[in-house]
Amino acid sequence: MPYNHIALIGLGLISASIALSIRRKDKNTKITGTSRSLETRKKADELGICEVRDNPVEAVKGADLIILCVPVGAMASVVQEFAATLKPGVTVTDVGSVKAAVIAKIIPILPTGIDFIPGHPLAGTENSGPESGFATLFDNRWCILTPLKGCSSEALKRLRFFWEGLGARVDEMDAEHHDLVLAVTSHVPHLIAYTMVGVADDLANITKSEVINYSAAGFRDFTRIAASDPTMWRDVFLNNKDASLEILGRFSEELTSLQRAVRRGDGELLFDYFTRTREVRRRILEAGQDTDAPNFGREKND
Amino acid sequence: MPYNHIALIGLGLISASIALSIRRKDKNTKITGTSRSLETRKKADELGICEVRDNPVEAVKGADLIILCVPVGAMASVVQEFAATLKPGVTVTDVGSVKAAVIAKIIPILPTGIDFIPGHPLAGTENSGPESGFATLFDNRWCILTPLKGCSSEALKRLRFFWEGLGARVDEMDAEHHDLVLAVTSHVPHLIAYTMVGVADDLANITKSEVINYSAAGFRDFTRIAASDPTMWRDVFLNNKDASLEILGRFSEELTSLQRAVRRGDGELLFDYFTRTREVRRRILEAGQDTDAPNFGREKND
Repeated sequence: MPYNHIALIGLGLISASIALSIRRKDKNTKITGTSRSLETRKKADELGICEVRDNPVEAVKGADLIILCVPVGAMASVVQEFAATLKPGVTVTDVGSVKAAVIAKIIPILPTGIDFIPGHPLAGTENSGPESGFATLFDNRWCILTPLKGCSSEALKRLRFFWEGLGARVDEMDAEHHDLVLAVTSHVPHLIAYTMVGVADDLANITKSEVINYSAAGFRDFTRIAASDPTMWRDVFLNNKDASLEILGRFSEELTSLQRAVRRGDGELLFDYFTRTREVRRRILEAGQDTDAPNFGREKND
Repeated sequence: MPYNHIALIGLGLISASIALSIRRKDKNTKITGTSRSLETRKKADELGICEVRDNPVEAVKGADLIILCVPVGAMASVVQEFAATLKPGVTVTDVGSVKAAVIAKIIPILPTGIDFIPGHPLAGTENSGPESGFATLFDNRWCILTPLKGCSSEALKRLRFFWEGLGARVDEMDAEHHDLVLAVTSHVPHLIAYTMVGVADDLANITKSEVINYSAAGFRDFTRIAASDPTMWRDVFLNNKDASLEILGRFSEELTSLQRAVRRGDGELLFDYFTRTREVRRRILEAGQDTDAPNFGREKND
């Protein structure tokens, strides 16, 4: 590892996975971590995720890499707690799903001499908490870094090397572009899944057990997406408002046109549309970002 | 098996899985099958799925159970081909995703003395063709039968027993209710997934490779759903128009309200909504209809 001491702020799925992934190949790098919740700190300690500290100031003491792994809405206040204790040369990064808003909040409160390099590993599951972490989470997944103008190229190289060491592939882009891309590949799909699950849960003429039992026909994938951490996702939409609304507008426009095709019985339009989207799937499989194993590659569950 | 000779009309994912599932425990039942496509018939023959016949009339000869496994829009014309050759006492069923429209088309062309019991196994993957079939597809999944008034209780009992033999659980409801339930758990989720994938594929300011590479953040589940067979799904929407439009209306209404919450920055509404939908997921896991294994239970794919 290109760092001697890594501090994890927040002890959830992502930070636990980072710690477990580091430990796969490196027994020496010191890893400290903290969480606001006593219960989470206890759990992380029991699981042996890292050396657990009582608060952010203790956790970052002596670290040369600090990774912010708390919901986007909590980042500024936690950085505020330890910012004054940092020594020049330290790199601070984060794993937030939104970048422009995080940068706008963090930059003003960091002392000079600190390299802040925003990051976002595109990996996760619908589960939360340190017990959900696993060492292979980042294997073959992308981590996007959105370095600011004037970022130290040495610090950037080290951080890239770090993520590659966890098994990830690293890409760079500017923060605004990241937020738009993620609105498409993640934020709006999540909002749509939450909406569909909400609709199903709310219908008077269909029982809840019918929705549950017959979910295998497509809906269960939506419920998995819609089971993600509510705090994290609230913060995503509060902090990536413009891009989310832009993509939502496009989505509604397109859905209206397909809805009209259903109403009119325009089979040709529907067939052509459904054929085109199949091609996107083929490219994702080719890029190694999913599997087409039977039964979605899931284990039988009975 | 409660039948001596089963005829499969259509040789795709579902019928291949039915044949393979029967063969897991029963070597004696005769299984014949046919497909309109010569290429598919050849493939099914090479794979040893069943005894392949050149046309529906040959395939159903001597069968005591006939299963229609073609897209909903093709069912009436294929039944027309062999209807006059059927002998009283034969049971005809289907696996179509829509029931009321299928019943309306099939009943007038079947001779009297034939038991037509519409069915729908809620199982499948995004893949098509006989080579996609696998023996465990129906294990622990539901099969919904929508028997008509005056249906022979003996014939119904046999068909239930047949599906249970394939590993499925069987439920019964009327056709209209089936179509509404499936609009929620399957048809509208598919249309939404198709729409989202279409939007992503169509954005000028985001490259196709960005969409592909960063799909792991939620979007890839949509692409899997949107990779399903275009002919099948066109027929679903042409034949379940009313229920689909009703649920689409509810969905759009709900999405508009969440969109307004994003615009207004109403974090509390978003948090409460996202918390409620998480509960639906918990119930699906409890019902054994999905797994929460890490990385969605998928195998690594690199």
